[in-house]
Order: sequence, then structure tokens, then C-alpha cells
Amino acid sequence: MGSKRVGNQSIVFQNPPFILAGYNIVGPKEGEGPLKASYDQIMNDTYNGEKSWEKTEAKMLETVLRGAADKAKVTVDSVEFILAGDLLNQIISSSFAARQLGIPFVGLYGACSTMALSTALGAMFIEGGFASQVLCAASSHHDTAERQYRMPTEQGNQRAMYAQWTVTGAGALLLADSGTGPRVTSATLGRVIDLGTTDTNNMGAAMAPAVADTILNHFQDLNREPDYYDLIVTGDLGTVGLQLLKEILKKSNLPMGKNLSDCGIMVFSPKQDTHAGGSGCGCSAVVLSGHILNQINSGELKKVLLIGSGSLHSPTSALQGETIPAIGHAVTIEMI
Amino acid sequence: MGSKRVGNQSIVFQNPPFILAGYNIVGPKEGEGPLKASYDQIMNDTYNGEKSWEKTEAKMLETVLRGAADKAKVTVDSVEFILAGDLLNQIISSSFAARQLGIPFVGLYGACSTMALSTALGAMFIEGGFASQVLCAASSHHDTAERQYRMPTEQGNQRAMYAQWTVTGAGALLLADSGTGPRVTSATLGRVIDLGTTDTNNMGAAMAPAVADTILNHFQDLNREPDYYDLIVTGDLGTVGLQLLKEILKKSNLPMGKNLSDCGIMVFSPKQDTHAGGSGCGCSAVVLSGHILNQINSGELKKVLLIGSGSLHSPTSALQGETIPAIGHAVTIEMI
Repeated sequence: MGSKRVGNQSIVFQNPPFILAGYNIVGPKEGEGPLKASYDQIMNDTYNGEKSWEKTEAKMLETVLRGAADKAKVTVDSVEFILAGDLLNQIISSSFAARQLGIPFVGLYGACSTMALSTALGAMFIEGGFASQVLCAASSHHDTAERQYRMPTEQGNQRAMYAQWTVTGAGALLLADSGTGPRVTSATLGRVIDLGTTDTNNMGAAMAPAVADTILNHFQDLNREPDYYDLIVTGDLGTVGLQLLKEILKKSNLPMGKNLSDCGIMVFSPKQDTHAGGSGCGCSAVVLSGHILNQINSGELKKVLLIGSGSLHSPTSALQGETIPAIGHAVTIEMI
Repeated sequence: MGSKRVGNQSIVFQNPPFILAGYNIVGPKEGEGPLKASYDQIMNDTYNGEKSWEKTEAKMLETVLRGAADKAKVTVDSVEFILAGDLLNQIISSSFAARQLGIPFVGLYGACSTMALSTALGAMFIEGGFASQVLCAASSHHDTAERQYRMPTEQGNQRAMYAQWTVTGAGALLLADSGTGPRVTSATLGRVIDLGTTDTNNMGAAMAPAVADTILNHFQDLNREPDYYDLIVTGDLGTVGLQLLKEILKKSNLPMGKNLSDCGIMVFSPKQDTHAGGSGCGCSAVVLSGHILNQINSGELKKVLLIGSGSLHSPTSALQGETIPAIGHAVTIEMI
């Protein structure tokens, strides 16, 4: 077994990489939400001067990659890898953003779990001695996702009350092998779990069992109790999925306390009429790189477990009658 | 700088991971090609008993993941990570295959460079001490790719003479921290390069500059000459792209000798009327996991450099008038 591997699925970093900076950008709706003070940039409209939403999303990712490097006071050229992904077919947002930066690029796909996956892998790159500075990022855009996964945006379809609203946002972290600040102390990479749900509007229900599996493995692998953490935050189950997660964990003898929350619930106010909350790779990316990182840096939080949750279906797989596979990837961030 | 990092973009493994086994499966057309003796399974038709080509492709990936573990005489449960990707939207082939195995899964997207990317990352996982056994895999299916990227398969469109034919195939490698056999000795991860081509039928032209960039960086980083290798093989530029690559490298004062070849050219015979040769994640995956690995194991080859080449566009990006970004990821495999 690899020496840094602990239990079934977890890795404990012996020299936990530092998060030197986080940077994010969101759309106007997100910018009116409860976390508005934690965003570096809020776009005035969903195009932000680009000719298509897809071009906007790529530009958003480029903005946060450069922004995180700037905030960390490192030059983009000194960053050794970009690890990024998004929801679009062939992850074009990430590839087109990486094109602008000229840095070796690792393209990832984990649906809404991508920010946790990229952070975990970025930390592994540093811990493994393969890099001293990496950029980890993810993005989503409500309108690019809507017209790719669901219906033409012009149609203005009515959404199910249990559906989540894809966040327009991108977030990036700059991880480094030295410095000061919060550190990525462990990671638990998830398995693909599919309990047979088929309603692609109800991704919370599809993802909750996968997130539960990763959480259960995390606590078993590290021999910890939930109260070890100040915050255990999923990204993003929404209200329906979070309730299901609580029920699964209770039945599995790992009841959660008040320290359990969800990026999809945090990112919008109930008044914003998003139904079950936010979703999309960008949701946990902007909440992690902004609000959560700020709270760790200010001392309000010391130990955080983020479990990114991804629904791994495609429109094609759904049309072919496949059930929805899902995954949860977890990273712990601690001020030590 | 990370201690294992060499030059701009390369990693030299201090304890090079072993390739314990490779396993592959191909479609009937590939099974009639020049490398037919190197395939573990040849399907009788493109469905292989499944109800859709997409389901077939997921099943193919599952088959090679299990096959590589079996051939290496390790149980699937003892494998710590699957690193895999494919061409389909949301990489459903990989996610659905990983669902069947219950192993932590890292989803990758590098288009046709995916096999090299997954092998590089798998080796990094082992070298970094994060795992002792990983499965690295990639797949493509001619018909799933054709109807997703180009035209309805029923239409029987005439193809450009410079177009490549997406291979129906999947390949997997089992990498381990101990054992015997060929070893992954270094990796050079690529940058996204885009010289402005827009013809998505001419992916060889789009990818050649990115592959050249990675090759130039590889030889500079490792301070090697091309004759260090018995085989330098791209995957997959086809006839058009390989010719362009030779020209670029010649102009860059790194002329290649007779040891340069391409998986897309090797996989089909000119008589098979595929025009510029093979392509798709599955192309380099089946050639690497079969023919090349066999030649290394038999002693015919001792030192191989594989440069996976990926065209990172999507149908949407092409329709929106974007040029084609591309990437090359390289791994070296040596019998040492």
C-alpha cells in the first residue's frame, strides 16, 4: 500500500499543501445571494461582454485562474499545472481557459464534484513532489448547462420543486508546497454509486448515497467522529439531497450534528426561488474559494470537510434509460 | 520545485511504476487490421450484445479494466484507483464502467490523449505513495463518436480524405509499485496549443503543433536525443498530422528518424479505407496495451515514448466559430 494511503479510500498528506489564495466570479443572480460579500467579481449580466454563454464560461475560468495566481502573488508562468473541469461536453470551458495560460493542463470530469476532485489531485501533485504550485478550478454557467442538459433556454420551462439551479460561477485555488494559510490535509476519493434513480431533475436524490458512501469511508478511514470538523459541507446536494443524506447517515450509525451544511443551500436564499438550491461545478467552487476560505482565514472555522457530489449521467444516458450514477470526492482543509 | 520535476513540464519517476498487464478489446474492423494478433478480444459486431453503442462502449471499458486486473493476477478489489476517460459527453463510458467495479474513480478528459494522461497520472499516484495498484484506461467507439461529433450514422456521410476514423476499442493497463516488466519512467504533461485551425475533420493538423510542443519540451527537459528511444509513437495524428509533425520538428532543429510512428497509422491498413488512419481515445489505448506492450515484453523494444494527442474542441465550440485547441501528453515506458 502507498505509504500515504489510509484505510479504504483516503490519503493523508504528510506535508499538507497550502492554499495560498482563492478567487471567484459569479453571475448577477448569485451576486444577489447571501454570500455576495465573498465574491471577487460579480458579473452585471450572464454574457459579460462575450458573444455566447459558452465563451463567457471559458472566460470566467480564465479570470479565476489568473485571479488566484495574482492574489497569491505568484506569476502565472511559475504555476506548474492547471487541474480543472466543468460540465460542458468535452469540458470546453476548461480547455479553452487553459489555452490562454500556456501551463500544462490536466482535464478532469467529476460533474459537480469537480472542485473537490481538482483540489484533491492538486494536493496529491504537490505532496508527491511533482509540483510546487498548482491551480485547481471548476466552473459552471446556468445557461450553458440548461441548454445542454435540459431544455432550450428560450423555452422558459417550469422547473420541478426538487430541482436545483445551476450556479453561474467559477472558482480557483492556488495550492503550494510552502507558505502560510489553510492546508489540504487529507482526501477521500469516491466510488461510483448508483441506487437506481432515473429522474435527472432530482440529482440530490441520485447523489446523496454516493456522498454518504464517501463520508462513511472518510470517517472510518481516518478514525474520526463528525465533531472533529467545524463544518462538514456537501457540494451540492440541495435541500432534497441533504435531507436524504442525513437519513442515510443516521441509519448508518453516523448521525450528523449542526455542523453539516451544503454549498447549494448556502449559495442562494430561499427568496431567490431556485427551488432545491444551487448546483453545478461552479457552486462548490465559488463557495469554497470565497466564503469557506474566508472563514478559515479569519479563524471562524478551523477544520472543514468538503464533499463534492457529482451526478455522472449525460442527456444521452438518460434518454437510453440508464439510471444515474453519482460520486462524492472529499477533501479536508484545516488551519494547522 | 517538486523534487521529481525536471525542466519545464516533465516528471522523472524515482521508483518507476511497473506495468503488470495490459488488456484490450476492439471492434470487427480493427480486428481485421494489421495488429489483430495483439488484441485480447475482438467483437463480432459493433453492439456486442448491447442495445446501444454507448452501452457497448461502457461494457468494453469494464471488460478491459477487469481483464487487465485478471491478467496481472490481482483482484479488482485490491486496485485502489481507476483513472479513465473517453470521448463521450460527460465521459459516460468511463463513469458507467467504474460503477460496475466499486473502486475510487478519477474521471479524465484529454480527448485522444486520454490513455497517455491516465497512464501518467496513474504512475504519479503510485510514485507519490498514494496507491500501490491502479488501473489506467480509455475507450472510444466509432459509432458513438460519429453520431456525437459529426453526423447521424444512418446518413452514411462521405468523409474527407484527410479525416481519421475513430477506433472502436478500449485498453487498460494495470500499474503497480512492485513486480516485473516494463516501467513508466517519466511523463511530460502538455499545454493547450491552438494555432487557429477550424476544420474539425482535420484533427491531425490541429493536434500536430501541440504534440510537437510536448515532444520539444520532453527532449529539452530530459536532455535526450530522439535516438534514445527505439520507438517514438504519437497517438493519434494520422498520416496528415504525422507529416506536419515531422515538418515542425525539423524546423525546430529536432529532426526525427525512422523510429517515429503513429498509433493511428499502425492500427489500420491503407486497404481498410479509413483515409488518414485511426483516432479516438481507444486507438492509442489498444495499440499501447497490446502491440507496443507485447513488443516491450518480448524485448523487441526497450525504450518507448508515447505522446497522446487530443483535440479539445466540442461540436458546440466548433459551431460557435472557435478554433481547435489541442494537447499532447507524453509517457515513457522502458524495460530497465
